[in-house]
Amino acid sequence: MASYLVTGASRGLGLALVSRLAALPTTEVGKIIATARSDNSPQLKELINNSSGRVELVKLDVADQKSATKAVGEVERVLQGKGLDFLINNAGLMDWSPAGVEGMDNLNEIFQTNVTGVHMVTRALLPLLRKGNKKTVINISSTVGSFASIENYRHSHCPAYKVTKAALNMLTLQYAQKYETEGFTVAAISPGWLRTDLGSERADLPVEVGAEKTVDIIQSTGPHQNGKFLNIHVAGWENAPGPNQYPGGESGW
Amino acid sequence: MASYLVTGASRGLGLALVSRLAALPTTEVGKIIATARSDNSPQLKELINNSSGRVELVKLDVADQKSATKAVGEVERVLQGKGLDFLINNAGLMDWSPAGVEGMDNLNEIFQTNVTGVHMVTRALLPLLRKGNKKTVINISSTVGSFASIENYRHSHCPAYKVTKAALNMLTLQYAQKYETEGFTVAAISPGWLRTDLGSERADLPVEVGAEKTVDIIQSTGPHQNGKFLNIHVAGWENAPGPNQYPGGESGW
Repeated sequence: MASYLVTGASRGLGLALVSRLAALPTTEVGKIIATARSDNSPQLKELINNSSGRVELVKLDVADQKSATKAVGEVERVLQGKGLDFLINNAGLMDWSPAGVEGMDNLNEIFQTNVTGVHMVTRALLPLLRKGNKKTVINISSTVGSFASIENYRHSHCPAYKVTKAALNMLTLQYAQKYETEGFTVAAISPGWLRTDLGSERADLPVEVGAEKTVDIIQSTGPHQNGKFLNIHVAGWENAPGPNQYPGGESGW
Repeated sequence: MASYLVTGASRGLGLALVSRLAALPTTEVGKIIATARSDNSPQLKELINNSSGRVELVKLDVADQKSATKAVGEVERVLQGKGLDFLINNAGLMDWSPAGVEGMDNLNEIFQTNVTGVHMVTRALLPLLRKGNKKTVINISSTVGSFASIENYRHSHCPAYKVTKAALNMLTLQYAQKYETEGFTVAAISPGWLRTDLGSERADLPVEVGAEKTVDIIQSTGPHQNGKFLNIHVAGWENAPGPNQYPGGESGW
């Protein structure tokens, strides 16, 4: 009965991850801490209200160090002396720049949330993660930011997203190397191109599918996947035109 | 007789690059614009004074958008209606964190110089680069920030440097893809671990060697190297213990 913390849970993939976790038996998933910048997401409220106290909201702006520090106190209270098993750094921003890199004016802002935010939250939660049984940190990344896929995403006009996800992947590896000997598993997962506000209506997959597949990976992750970049597996995509976007297994950085 | 602009030229590799360029015949290298945050580097002053007007200082803080905009006007004046052939984005910061990633407290600051600064300067100089004959942008990166070399640098305690150089590499690729059809060459170069304030006294190579090898690559670079990550070649390193750090050719991202 593992505990989970999911950042950016007010909508999109974060909300869907919390929803998926809350649908799993309590023998597998215990306390689920959903963090969000504010408490005004009706969908998250509903999830919390229907969870019999299993899902709890902790306010957290990942881009704000003070907020991260304060949130840790709240998380500690919710866990009642136990450690945190799984941290899912999901909160993230994407840019949309039809002019490509020349139109990119929000690099620092997006970096602050997608990379520095992950660093601040992870570091602040290290003491609770050390007390946990799973010691697992999952950073929601994207193959859009991988060097191995650079040609596939040539026409994806989100230069700051690409730059910051590459940076996040390198941050993931720093944590993986640093805490390996303490039994941590730190991995990046590409959850697929999902139909959310971030991914748009044109995306490949319903958000529920991305959330389910991501949780499948997370639940089966162990120290052997420390420092890996993992892709979801969705059956049928091997027949789609172009390279298979969702083959599962490891993705190239 | 090509024109060059080198950022971060007050010391270290930037100063050595300007010095190396100024030592080459005027048939190869014309105007050299050395940028620095201030005009108080005695070594750069001496270089300028001995250059018969070939080296000119333009004040530029790459981390400051206003400074970049202002510098472009100065560069335009120096080039007297001609375009800029080579932009060398060299200005950079490195962290030193003996506690590893847990001690990293300067990620935003280092990102601002190493990545956002390169973006601001390159974008601001695009009109002059388009007017140039070479249309070449060289980003000074490092294999320390490459995923391919992650194991080699496990014990290099510069987490923010690694994260920001990975990000810079992805930025480099965005520019390479965007301006390919306009005949641009945008490449990253790893200049080696050099004995500078940044690299420390313990580094592999004298800064002059790194500068010479880097200029060799730059001078032979053409559109076929657009979007590449290039390493310097230093003879003899194939016999050193461990993987050859300076084999030349392309480096893995």
